[in-house]
Order: sequence, then structure tokens, then C-alpha cells
Amino acid sequence: MSEEVATGERKRRARGGGGAARRAERTAPRFDSAPVIVRKTPTLDILNDEALAIIEANAETVLEEIGVVFAENPGALERWRAAGADVRGERVHIPRGLARELCKTAPSSFTHHARNPERSVEIGGNNLVFAPVYGPPFVRDLDGVRRYATIEDFRTFVKLGYMSKWVHLSGGTLCEPTDVPVNKRHLDMLHAHMTLSDKPYMGAVTDKDWAADCVEMSKILFGAEFVDQNAVMTSLVNINSPLTFDSVMMGTLETYAAANQACIVSPFIVGGAMAPVSVAGTLTQVLAEVMAGVAYSQLVRKGAPVIFGAFVTSIDMNSGAPTFGTPEATQITLGAGQLARRMGLPFRSSGAFTGSKLPDAQAGYESANSLQMGMNAGVNFMLHACGWLEGGLVSSFEKFVLDADQLGTVHKFAAGVAIDENAQAMDALREVGPGGHYLGCAHTQANFKDAFWRSEVLDYKPYETWFEEGARDSSTLANVRVRKLLGQYEAPAMDPAVREAIEAFVARRKAEMPDAYS
Amino acid sequence: MSEEVATGERKRRARGGGGAARRAERTAPRFDSAPVIVRKTPTLDILNDEALAIIEANAETVLEEIGVVFAENPGALERWRAAGADVRGERVHIPRGLARELCKTAPSSFTHHARNPERSVEIGGNNLVFAPVYGPPFVRDLDGVRRYATIEDFRTFVKLGYMSKWVHLSGGTLCEPTDVPVNKRHLDMLHAHMTLSDKPYMGAVTDKDWAADCVEMSKILFGAEFVDQNAVMTSLVNINSPLTFDSVMMGTLETYAAANQACIVSPFIVGGAMAPVSVAGTLTQVLAEVMAGVAYSQLVRKGAPVIFGAFVTSIDMNSGAPTFGTPEATQITLGAGQLARRMGLPFRSSGAFTGSKLPDAQAGYESANSLQMGMNAGVNFMLHACGWLEGGLVSSFEKFVLDADQLGTVHKFAAGVAIDENAQAMDALREVGPGGHYLGCAHTQANFKDAFWRSEVLDYKPYETWFEEGARDSSTLANVRVRKLLGQYEAPAMDPAVREAIEAFVARRKAEMPDAYS
Repeated sequence: MSEEVATGERKRRARGGGGAARRAERTAPRFDSAPVIVRKTPTLDILNDEALAIIEANAETVLEEIGVVFAENPGALERWRAAGADVRGERVHIPRGLARELCKTAPSSFTHHARNPERSVEIGGNNLVFAPVYGPPFVRDLDGVRRYATIEDFRTFVKLGYMSKWVHLSGGTLCEPTDVPVNKRHLDMLHAHMTLSDKPYMGAVTDKDWAADCVEMSKILFGAEFVDQNAVMTSLVNINSPLTFDSVMMGTLETYAAANQACIVSPFIVGGAMAPVSVAGTLTQVLAEVMAGVAYSQLVRKGAPVIFGAFVTSIDMNSGAPTFGTPEATQITLGAGQLARRMGLPFRSSGAFTGSKLPDAQAGYESANSLQMGMNAGVNFMLHACGWLEGGLVSSFEKFVLDADQLGTVHKFAAGVAIDENAQAMDALREVGPGGHYLGCAHTQANFKDAFWRSEVLDYKPYETWFEEGARDSSTLANVRVRKLLGQYEAPAMDPAVREAIEAFVARRKAEMPDAYS
Repeated sequence: MSEEVATGERKRRARGGGGAARRAERTAPRFDSAPVIVRKTPTLDILNDEALAIIEANAETVLEEIGVVFAENPGALERWRAAGADVRGERVHIPRGLARELCKTAPSSFTHHARNPERSVEIGGNNLVFAPVYGPPFVRDLDGVRRYATIEDFRTFVKLGYMSKWVHLSGGTLCEPTDVPVNKRHLDMLHAHMTLSDKPYMGAVTDKDWAADCVEMSKILFGAEFVDQNAVMTSLVNINSPLTFDSVMMGTLETYAAANQACIVSPFIVGGAMAPVSVAGTLTQVLAEVMAGVAYSQLVRKGAPVIFGAFVTSIDMNSGAPTFGTPEATQITLGAGQLARRMGLPFRSSGAFTGSKLPDAQAGYESANSLQMGMNAGVNFMLHACGWLEGGLVSSFEKFVLDADQLGTVHKFAAGVAIDENAQAMDALREVGPGGHYLGCAHTQANFKDAFWRSEVLDYKPYETWFEEGARDSSTLANVRVRKLLGQYEAPAMDPAVREAIEAFVARRKAEMPDAYS
């Protein structure tokens, strides 16, 4: 079913028939977004209860004996002291059980609201939502040139995300808009998310004042009261692994948690560098770090929504390069999912990771391995689900649509297997019998439209047709699709007054600050 | 660890130190082969007991009420009649429970012997073995030309399989040697497997006389008595789905089962064409077909080794093309694995499947999806594990080495997670502490060599190096690797008398038959 047809059907159902429906169809956004995935397939639990208990006990030992550093953050140390931790200098020793106890006030699930209520997402439980690539300074553009990213590239990614049926969030720093002063990028980025898409977005994290700007802009969009009571941003707070919580990231966490906005508390680990070279050792550190960070969020504001994050890659011990789609990262991610579920917290991990420089076979293998890992790990919030290239240095338009298309396979797989009478298909087996074929039988006619997932970008053509059309590889086909989508883009409707207010805020804040470039 | 180093270490351990070891090293094959995978990770069981029971009950209904056709095979009908089936014309109606009962004499696990005993493989239980692509009439050659395959291409694939550390079997019809008369290909193919490799091989299946030739050649290689008591071939017997067992395939099954050689009994299903469009319906048919085929093998010779096979693809309902790496095929394969385990039979499925014409991103996504599916489905025998392109029409040298490399990730992942004291790495966590790094710590030094799987073909280089070296994509890097490997090839040692006897047999049989080309 094409995106356009799906949109039409949904709108008709939603708004009733007749002239009103036809008018709605003409003005409705042309691009449909699939609902949040409610996973009906099992997780792949690779650790048994004994192993999990050992890792949990070791994590408590890490917190108590080794402790964690909250750097340049007297307020945080004071909060920890008051909560009962043993604070020595900047090092916080957390008595066994305290962090886990503090984590209990974090919700097991929360709603991340979008300005279009149909696109709000529930994060937690068996749900899985997809957000695009986050953070690269470079893009690989549609002419195949690798160069620094610009705000125009950023806007292009917002548009692609908005038009991607299987992607739930507009995301955060889709690429670094390096042509905008570093202290003003968050304003332009949030403006793009707010105006060019109606999907949920993420806030700035590299300065607490910029985080505060994001809260203010969100209050304009959603209303101040709504924002205080509801999460309208889920933002990415990385831990400076091993065991260090720097004041920039914690300042952001404090700002968002105080404003009741969601944060992902995420160890950022290149295995063997920021964590031990073993799976069990890395999981121990990840758990200790997440427990400390989540506990701290609850010291700032009890009940603030927060996600158990784990960004984990392996490393090429020859070159020191991070490697992706590898078995060790998969094992760690599956194990981290088990630990998160035992804590009753939403889980963030995975993505369409690759170290490849191009959207080639390596990118395909590694990204598919990573996506499968996320699905089987019970990830609730998947960042970097599309567009990631070159170990996170590059955002790629072509990779974006290739990955976004693959996310459809996750949607379909996670829906599970029907076993009702229609699915049993005994009538079809009886009708066709030995030696027949099912293409024309009644059961096939009734069910074929939804029976098989179909790619919107990969090649399924006969060899001769494919050859005559230029023998195009996936990267070339993706380039064609990006150009086609961008030609079809239409911005979602928006109240002009709200838009003006947002733009006035951006203009005022830009005028208040001198340009900074680092 | 490089392949060469690994070989050296293994040989040293195997043969002791000193001059003998050094001499052995000089004459030993240069290419190591990893042991069979003994899977320590769980399977992904997507069907609950109720769903499995429904499918099993429906499969019995199919066998009893609809029945299966054994075409042009009076001997088979007679065997079924004697076993208690209700035979009407060529249609065999099998009373509930009879097929499952007959299947019980099939072994749950068997050894497929190689002429080099170190390369024999045990098939069943938690084991997983890899065999290369099977069947394509075309190759994509090292100059990027798609053309009919030749016996020289076939030999090249045998060499690549022999040199691939993660591939356990030399395989079967790696490509169709179309420059050899069709009735003599099996002789040249088996000769190549026997002489250019020392890994286990598969026998011919498209004519029972050719199967008999393969048995005879194996008797020369292994000795007649050994072959009668041990499986030295595992051969691929496809079922003509739906529900039809043609006389060619059954003639082969009869030949091999009588000779105590292993067969894979494998429904060949393009979903929606050869089976219902639903997962549950397809699984019902797969189970019915396998039960009938396996039961028949046991009517031929009780205890003959046999594998529960399932080759399943989805279909693009727009073009009719089979599609690969899709969610429906994954669901069916995972479910088939559950059904196979409940029967106590070894399971064959999966492969590095793709519909792509090139070793590009599509090939990567689809192949990785398919490999992960096989691993999580508990596959014991994975055919097409490397080299498959274009929906099985093309064998690709480049894809062969790319896939074979990825099989290493399965080896590593399936080994599971260590949880012993060393793996817990508490000393490392204490040594490094907050803000440090693990690259130089004692635990890392002691463990880094085996800590992370490392690709032998994918790109892990810094961007600048990669760019200066020509900005090569995976396909180009794979081309380089194929050429390098072929330059390093050395045939494994072989008793000249045995080799001469095999070649005399081939020459005699070729002389006895007029050339046939279809």
C-alpha cells in the first residue's frame, strides 16, 4: 500500500464520508505515519537469572566502592549527600541499594507528545519508537560529496523524517548545522522540527541555557501549563563513561527534569576504551552509570520521565576505530535490555549503525544487524534508526531512506503471528491441494494486500528490466527516492500566530547573544 | 587473529613441538576452519504452545484429509500402503499420527564425515554448520560480468569455501557448470569437492543414477564399508510444494537413504504461490510436507539420517518476484525451527538471501536479516550461507567472501556470554575508575585479542586513508579479497592413489554416457 493511499484511507476513516472528507483529504498532510510498534514478539534473553544477579550485584559494588564523579557540580553533590550518599570530593559513593531505590519513582512508561496528537508516542512497555540519526557534523550530499552539514541539510532531514511512514520522531540534531553559530543552532533546529514536521522532537543538550530555550519554545507551541505536566521533548544526556557525569550534561538533565521533560540517560561506550573488553564487565558499568544518572534525575524531580540508555559499540583493536553491527555489541544490547526491564524503565539503544563510508553492502550488513539487535533487545526508543553513516560522523540522505524503509520490516515482524481461523488457511490448503498454486485462490485474494511487507526503495525487478533501467545499485535507487520525496514535500498545517511567536522568540534570542563558533 | 596464525597455532597444539611440528607446519594446509558452532544463545520462539499445537493438528488434518502425491512412483505407493496409509491413485492419505510416528526412527543428530576428520561436522542439537550457495546457473564474475557459470567458476567457489574459516562445508552445486554436459556435471562437481577441498560435501540430486555415482565416488574416497555405516554426504531433496513428491527427487531420496546417506527434506516455498499467504498456513503445509518426506525416508531405511528443511521466501505481489530478508520469511523460519525441535529433527533453513542484482546495500540488509533469522531460529544446517545473489540466479565471488566474513559474527555471537570472574572484570573497573580509559589496563591487555570479532574484508579505516586508497566500496574490497585468496590457494594433501581412482571412475562414467545438454 503506497503512502498516499494509506493517508487517504486513514483520513476517510477518521473524518467520515462525503464532502467534508474530500475537503479534509485535500488539506490533510499527504504523508501517513505508522502507529507506534507494540511488540508482540519475544525478546532474545541471552543472560540467565544468575548472570543478571551477578551483574546487578557488581553494579552496586561499583557504585558503593568505586563511586561516580559528578564534576564541577556542587549542587549535585549536595543533592547526593542529602540523599544519603558518601561524597568525597567530587566522587559520590552510593550505598548498596540506594540508587535502585531512588530509580523507583521514575515512570515505567510516559507519553511524548507531538503537536499533532495523532503522532504522540507512548514510550515504554512493549512499545518501540524510531528516531533518526543524531549528531553528525558531516553530510554525504545528493551529489555524493562529503562535506560539513548546513541548516539547509538539517531541514532536508526533517522533511524526510516527516515523510517517512515508519519513523515516529522528527528527532534531534539530525546533523550539526555548522553554518549557524554554535550557540544559536538549537534555535534554528527546534524551529525546523516545530514548523516542518508535526512529529515529536528532541531538545538541545550541550548547554543548560539552550535546553531552557527549548523549554521556552515548547511552551509557545504547546502552552506553558501543558509543558509542565507533559513530556514534549525527550533529550539525549550522555554519560561521560566511565563513571563520570559532567556538569554540562547534568546541567541539561537538571533543566529538563525540573521542567518535567524526558531525558535518555545514556552511557556512551566504545568497548575496550570506555568500558572493559568483556560483555559482563561492560554491562556492569552500564548498569551502574544508568542507575546513578536515573537516580539523580529523581533527586531533581521525582517522577521526571527518564529512559535507560545504552550506546555501545565494539572497537577494532588494530586501528582503534569503533565498529558496528558486531556480535559483542549485540550481546551487550540484549543484556542491557534485560537489565532495563528488571528496573521497570523504558530502554533506549540500537540504531542503523555502520562504520561504512558509503551506503554499500557493509552499511547494509551492519545496519541490519543493529536493527535486529534493537528489535530483539526490546528497545523502546531507538535513536539513529535511519541515516547514520561512517560511525556517526556523517548523516546520509540516501542511507536515511534505505534505513527508514527497513524499519517497515521491524513494524511487520514485531506485529507477531496471527493464528486465527483466517490465518490457519485450511480452506486454502483444501482448495489448492497437491500440485496446485495459491496465486488465485480465495484466501490469497482476500489477504494478499497485507500479507507481505514490500520495500518502497529496494529493487524487485526482473534482471532485464533492471539492466535496461541502468543497472542501478541501492545507493542510486535511494538517491532517486530522496529527490522524489523532496519534490512531494508539503509542510504540515500550523497556526500562523504560533509560528510567528516561535519565530519572534528565535529572533529575540539570536539578537541577545553574540555569535559563537566553538 | 589472522587465518595463517590460527592454522599455525592449531597445528602446533595438535602435533607437538620441535622439528616434526615445523615440518608439519610447512606441509599443512594454510587455511584453518573454525569448529562447528555450538549455540549457547537462546532461540527466538515466536509461537506459543497453543499456536504450535494448532499447527501440528492442522498438519495432521492435511496429511489425512488432503493427502500428498507421490507422482510416478509405484514403489513409494506400495511402501505407504504397507505402512498403513490410505492410497488413492497417486494420492497418499496418511492417518493422523502415522507420519509423526514413522519419523521417530530418524536420528536427532548425525555426523557428516569429511575426508579430513578434523572437518567432519555433527548436525543436530545446538550445532550450526554453514554451507555455501547452491544452484545458480549464472555467476557475476570478477570483472563484473553476469554470465552462465562454468566448471572453472565452480572450482573457484570450492577454493574459496576451502579457504573460508567460518564455512564448514564445501557444499553442493555451488553454481551450475553449464559448459559441462548436464548428465556429467555431477562427476566434475564431486571431483572438485573431493580434490580441491577437504570439507564435507553434498551429492547430486537431479537423477537417481547420478546420486548413485556420488555414492560410488564416495566409496572410493572413504571406503565402501565406511560409507554404508556413515553419512559422507548430505544432499538436498526439495519437495514440489504444495504437497507433491516427484519421482526424480524421491528416486534420489531412495538412493541416498538406502545408502545411509543424509538428505534434507525441504519444502521449497515462495509464499503466496506454493503456500498460503499466511504464516500459520505456510507452517502447516511445511510441517505436513516434511513429516511425509521424513516418514518416507524411514520407510526406505529406518534410521537413515534426514533433516527437517524449510526454504521459504515471501513474494512481491506486484511483480511476482520472490523477496528475501523479509519479516514474513523470518516469522515462518523461526516457527519452523520450533516445529523441528518438537520433532527432535535437525533443522535446515536460512542463508545469506537477497534479491539484489549486486553486492550492494540491499544485499547487505537482506542477507544480514536472513543470517540473523537462521541463527535465532536454531538452524542446524544453513545452506546458501554465502555467495547467493539475485534470488538464487547468480553465484557471486564477491558476495561469497562478504557473507563468509559475516558468518564470523554468528560464530562469535552464538558462543554466548561468559560470566566468570575474568569476564566480570571488576579488577578492571577498580583499576580504571571514573574518567580513565581501559585501553592500557591489565584486563584489556590480557583479553583484547579475542574480545572483539574483526572483519577480514570490511572497511575500518580512517576516512582520509580510505579516500586516498580509492574510496572503495564493499564490493570493490571484496573483489580485492577474492583475488588475494585465490593467489594463496593450495590444495589440501591427498593420497595420489585415491585421486587416480576417483579420476578413473569419472573418466569411465563419462565415456559410458553420451553428452546430454538438457
